[in-house]
Amino acid sequence: MHLQVPRPLQRVVHTLSGAACGLIEFLSHCLFSTDLRGKVFIFPEESNTAHVSLVPRVNNPLKNFTLCLKAFTDLTRPYSLFSYNTRSTDNELLLFVNKVGEYILYVGGTGVTFKVPPSPDTPAHLCASWESASGIAELWVNGKPVGRKGLKRGYTVKEKASIILGQEQDSFGGGFDAKQSFVGEIWDVSLWNRVLPLKNMCTSCYPGNILTWQALTYKARGYVVVKPKVWP
Amino acid sequence: MHLQVPRPLQRVVHTLSGAACGLIEFLSHCLFSTDLRGKVFIFPEESNTAHVSLVPRVNNPLKNFTLCLKAFTDLTRPYSLFSYNTRSTDNELLLFVNKVGEYILYVGGTGVTFKVPPSPDTPAHLCASWESASGIAELWVNGKPVGRKGLKRGYTVKEKASIILGQEQDSFGGGFDAKQSFVGEIWDVSLWNRVLPLKNMCTSCYPGNILTWQALTYKARGYVVVKPKVWP
Amino acid sequence: MHLQVPRPLQRVVHTLSGAACGLIEFLSHCLFSTDLRGKVFIFPEESNTAHVSLVPRVNNPLKNFTLCLKAFTDLTRPYSLFSYNTRSTDNELLLFVNKVGEYILYVGGTGVTFKVPPSPDTPAHLCASWESASGIAELWVNGKPVGRKGLKRGYTVKEKASIILGQEQDSFGGGFDAKQSFVGEIWDVSLWNRVLPLKNMCTSCYPGNILTWQALTYKARGYVVVKPKVWP
Amino acid sequence: MHLQVPRPLQRVVHTLSGAACGLIEFLSHCLFSTDLRGKVFIFPEESNTAHVSLVPRVNNPLKNFTLCLKAFTDLTRPYSLFSYNTRSTDNELLLFVNKVGEYILYVGGTGVTFKVPPSPDTPAHLCASWESASGIAELWVNGKPVGRKGLKRGYTVKEKASIILGQEQDSFGGGFDAKQSFVGEIWDVSLWNRVLPLKNMCTSCYPGNILTWQALTYKARGYVVVKPKVWP
Amino acid sequence: MHLQVPRPLQRVVHTLSGAACGLIEFLSHCLFSTDLRGKVFIFPEESNTAHVSLVPRVNNPLKNFTLCLKAFTDLTRPYSLFSYNTRSTDNELLLFVNKVGEYILYVGGTGVTFKVPPSPDTPAHLCASWESASGIAELWVNGKPVGRKGLKRGYTVKEKASIILGQEQDSFGGGFDAKQSFVGEIWDVSLWNRVLPLKNMCTSCYPGNILTWQALTYKARGYVVVKPKVWP
Repeated sequence: MHLQVPRPLQRVVHTLSGAACGLIEFLSHCLFSTDLRGKVFIFPEESNTAHVSLVPRVNNPLKNFTLCLKAFTDLTRPYSLFSYNTRSTDNELLLFVNKVGEYILYVGGTGVTFKVPPSPDTPAHLCASWESASGIAELWVNGKPVGRKGLKRGYTVKEKASIILGQEQDSFGGGFDAKQSFVGEIWDVSLWNRVLPLKNMCTSCYPGNILTWQALTYKARGYVVVKPKVWP
Repeated sequence: MHLQVPRPLQRVVHTLSGAACGLIEFLSHCLFSTDLRGKVFIFPEESNTAHVSLVPRVNNPLKNFTLCLKAFTDLTRPYSLFSYNTRSTDNELLLFVNKVGEYILYVGGTGVTFKVPPSPDTPAHLCASWESASGIAELWVNGKPVGRKGLKRGYTVKEKASIILGQEQDSFGGGFDAKQSFVGEIWDVSLWNRVLPLKNMCTSCYPGNILTWQALTYKARGYVVVKPKVWP
Repeated sequence: MHLQVPRPLQRVVHTLSGAACGLIEFLSHCLFSTDLRGKVFIFPEESNTAHVSLVPRVNNPLKNFTLCLKAFTDLTRPYSLFSYNTRSTDNELLLFVNKVGEYILYVGGTGVTFKVPPSPDTPAHLCASWESASGIAELWVNGKPVGRKGLKRGYTVKEKASIILGQEQDSFGGGFDAKQSFVGEIWDVSLWNRVLPLKNMCTSCYPGNILTWQALTYKARGYVVVKPKVWP
Repeated sequence: MHLQVPRPLQRVVHTLSGAACGLIEFLSHCLFSTDLRGKVFIFPEESNTAHVSLVPRVNNPLKNFTLCLKAFTDLTRPYSLFSYNTRSTDNELLLFVNKVGEYILYVGGTGVTFKVPPSPDTPAHLCASWESASGIAELWVNGKPVGRKGLKRGYTVKEKASIILGQEQDSFGGGFDAKQSFVGEIWDVSLWNRVLPLKNMCTSCYPGNILTWQALTYKARGYVVVKPKVWP
Repeated sequence: MHLQVPRPLQRVVHTLSGAACGLIEFLSHCLFSTDLRGKVFIFPEESNTAHVSLVPRVNNPLKNFTLCLKAFTDLTRPYSLFSYNTRSTDNELLLFVNKVGEYILYVGGTGVTFKVPPSPDTPAHLCASWESASGIAELWVNGKPVGRKGLKRGYTVKEKASIILGQEQDSFGGGFDAKQSFVGEIWDVSLWNRVLPLKNMCTSCYPGNILTWQALTYKARGYVVVKPKVWP
C-alpha cells in the first residue's frame, strides 16, 4: 500500500489507505485538495470500510441546496450515493437508491421517493435541489425532470456535517453497512447552498460553493482508487 | 406559513395555506386572479386536504364543453385530474385516472373509459370534449386521438359548480379521499362551453371562456405550491 | 332523438334512430345515399341494436371480391367488422376479429385466420380479397401483406345479402350479440366484385363497384353517429 | 379442378391436382419447366398431401452445396422448408424449422441447430451451405450470418434424390405428416453443388446449377397454387 | 483428416488433428506461425478435446495486461473465452462467460463479474485490462465501458503459461470439461503486458506484444477449422 500526491498526469492512480492516514487528529496529513476534473473515485469492491470523506468549503446551515453528481454502478441492491450526517441527525441530507430506478432524497431524516425508468449499464447524471420555504424537492436524472415532491417545509439542514461517498452513515462518520455500500464509480460531485435551475445544468460550468470537483478537499480510506473517467 | 401575491418574477413561490384564508364567507380575501402562464400547481404530497378551487368566468349550464389540461405524476393508484360537482350531482364533470393509461370521463354521473398506451415518467397533455346532441365524448392524449365514446345524449351539465384540482369531491366542495388525491403537477387548465377541434389544439392560443390559465381565479388550501414549470 | 339529412358542413352530426325509420317496408324513407368521404360511423357504446345496413350498388353473386375498410377500436373481445349474410348462409362473407391482431375471414361459412403483430391504439387499414378459382384469400393490414390462405375453392358468394356494420348477424339481418358488437369507428368501406392488387391500395382512388364510401346507400339504426374523422 | 400451362401473364393461377397427373410412370405429363421469377408457391392449408416435387438439372453426388430459398409462414409448430431424401437415407439434406427462430440443417441424417432472433410476420431469406472437407455448415438469415457449425465431415450427399417442398419426407417421396407440413409461401429456391460466399448473396444473380427458380422443373400435387409474390 | 499449411487464399480450410501432431516433444512439427488477419478459429461442435494452444511471443510475468478478442457463439451455458493457466495456479488469467451478458475475469484464481445488456446473435468485441498497482480490472464490450472492479491488488500474473482457446483448463494444459467448452468462432485475439486505453481500441492497429493475430504461433488439436470471417 502506498500514497501518492495526485499530479495532472494521465492515468495517475491514487491508492489511499486509512492506515497511512492514521488517527483523525492527524487528518490534515491525509487531506487532498485538488482538481479532480476528468477523474473519478472507483469503489472497486463491496466493503464496510472504503469511503471518501468530503470537506465542505464553507460550514453553514442550509435553507436551500442543490446537489449534483454522476455515478456508474451495476448494483441492484440498495446503496448510498451521498451521505451527509450531523451529530444530531441521521440522514440529514442523503441521496439513496433503493433499487434500480428508485431514488430517495432525505432531508432532516425524512425521505421522498422519485421513480425513474431504469437505464441500466449507463452512468446516471443526478441533480437534486430542495427549498426550505416551500419544502419542494426536485430531482433531474440525465437532464430530464423526474418530479417534484414536498418535505420538511421550513426546516434547516444543519452544518458541521460528516459528508461521505461510498458508505451510508448510520451514525456521525460511521455505522457503515456493506449491504448499503456503493460499488462503482462516482464523479463530478457538487453542492451549492441555493436552489439552481436544473434545466441544462452544467456541473462543470457552475462550481459548487460548498463542494466542487475542481477543488475538492477529501480524505479517502480503504480500497478507493482515483482514475480517469471512461464514460462520455 | 405565509401568503404571497404572485408576481411575474422568476421562481416566485406561493405557499398557500387554508388557515390564512379562513372561512368560506371570507373567500374573497384568498382569491387570486392571475396570469399563470409558465407556472404549475404542485401538489407535493398525498393528503385529503390540499386542493385548488377554480372560479369559473361565467356560470351557465353546458350543452357542450372542451376541457384541456397538462399533468405530471408518478401515481399508479386512481386519482382525480379535474372534479366539477354541483349540489345535486356527484361527478357532474370529472376527468379521472383509474390506473396508468386508463382515463374515465364522467358527465352527469356516468363515465366512459378511454385506454391509452402508458407513457410513464412524462407529462400528459389531455383534451376532452363532449357534445350533448350526439352524446359523443372525445379524448386526445399528447396530441393524438384516443377514441370517441357516447354518453348522456341530450344531457345538460349544470352550472353553480364546485371545481377542484387536487382532490376528488364526493360531495359539493368536500368528501375528499387521500387515496384519490392528486400528487404531482397540473398546469394549463382550460374549459370552454363548446366543442373545439382537438387536432393541433393549442391551449395557450385559444383561452378558455370558462376557465383559462392566463387569467385564473382560484383559491388554494393546504399544501399546494406554485412554481415555474420544468416540463417542455 | 332526431334525424338530419347529411350536408357537407363541418362537424355535421347525424343521430339516426330506428324508431324514426319504422318498419322495413318503409326502408326507403330512412335510406341515405351520400358522399361520406372524410366522415366515419361512430358506434359509441356496446349494444345489440346499433348498426348500419349497407345497400349494394349491384346485386350479383361473387366469384371474386375485394373488401377494404378502416376501423378504430379499443375492444379486446371478439367483434365483427363486416357482416354479409344471405337468407341461406350464415357468415357468407364476414371479416371478424377474434382478439387483438387475429383476423378471421369467412367465405360461405368457412373461416381462415390471419395473425398480425398488434398495433394497439391506432386505426387499422384492412384489405381482404378472395378468388374462387384458386380459393386464395389474402389480407393486408396497414399496407403490408399478412399472408394468403385457401378456402372454399370454386365457391360462389350469394347475392341478395344483408350487409351490416356494427353487429355480427347470426341470422339474416338479425341475431345480434352485444358481445360481438363493434364499438368504435369505421370508415372508407369499399367492396368490389373482383380481386384487386392490394399493394399500394388506395381506397379513395378506386371506388368500389358494390359498395363505395363516396356514394354510400345506408340505413342506420340505434345509437350510431356520423362525425368527421380524426385519424390521419 | 383444372390444369393450366403457366404463361407470363399477371396473376396467372395454376391449380394443380395430383388426380390429373396420374401415376408416377406418367410423370412427364405433369412436369412444368418454367421461369418462376416473380412467382411463389402457396401452400394454402395444412395437409399431408399438398407438395411440389423438384427435378434437379443434374444428378450427381454433392461434396459441397449451397441452398437458398425465401419463405413466409405464420406457423409456430415444426415444419419442413426443403426435404431431399434418397432411397437409402432419410433427411439426406433437410432444412427444417423446429420453432420460430430455430433452424435445423440435416446432412446425411445428422442435424445442427441455428438460433435466430425471431422476426415474425415477415418473410425469411435463408441461405445455407455445407462443405464436406471441413464439415462446416453455415446459415445466413435475411442477409446476416447466424453461425457456423460442423457436421458429417468427409461425407458425400447422395444423388437420385426425391426433392420436395411443402412436406417432410419420412421415406423416399412419401411418409408425409400434416403436422410437419408447410403452410405459407415459398419462392426463389436455388441449389448449387458448391459453397458460395453468402455475403451479399443475390439468388437471382447466380442461377443454381442443380435447382434454379428461373428454369424450374417441378410437379405439384394436391392444393398448391402459383401466384405473383406480394413480399418486397 | 489432413493438415494444410495456411496460405493467403480465400476460403483456405485447415483441418488440424492432434493425432498428426503427435507428442508434446514434437510440438514444433505442428506449430503454425502465421498472419491470421481476416480469419477465425471455428470450434464447430461441443467437445472436451478441440482447442487451440497459443504460444506467447515473450514469456515474462505480468504486472499489468490488456486482453482483446472477438467471439461469436449461440451458447447460453457457461464457457471459457481465454484460459491462461500456470503449473501452480488454476485460472491465473481467465476470461469466462457465466451466462449471456455475464462475464467473469479471473486473475490469480480470483474473479470479478461484469454484467452487460445481452446482445444475442451478434459477435462480441471484448477488451479487458488489469493493473497490479491498483488492482483495477476494466472491461469494454463492443466499444463501450462496462465497469471497473478491483481484484488481486499487488499480484503478479506468472509466466510459463498454457494459453488455450476453446476449452477451460482445470489443470495445466488439460482438465477440459465439454460443458465449459467454447462452440463458435474466435478471432483477433491480442495480449499486451501493459494497460492500454480501451476507448477507441483498434486491435489491428496495436499488435499485442505477447499475442497478436497478425503473427500468431499456435497449435490446434481436435475439430477446429480456420475460415475467413463472415462478421463485419
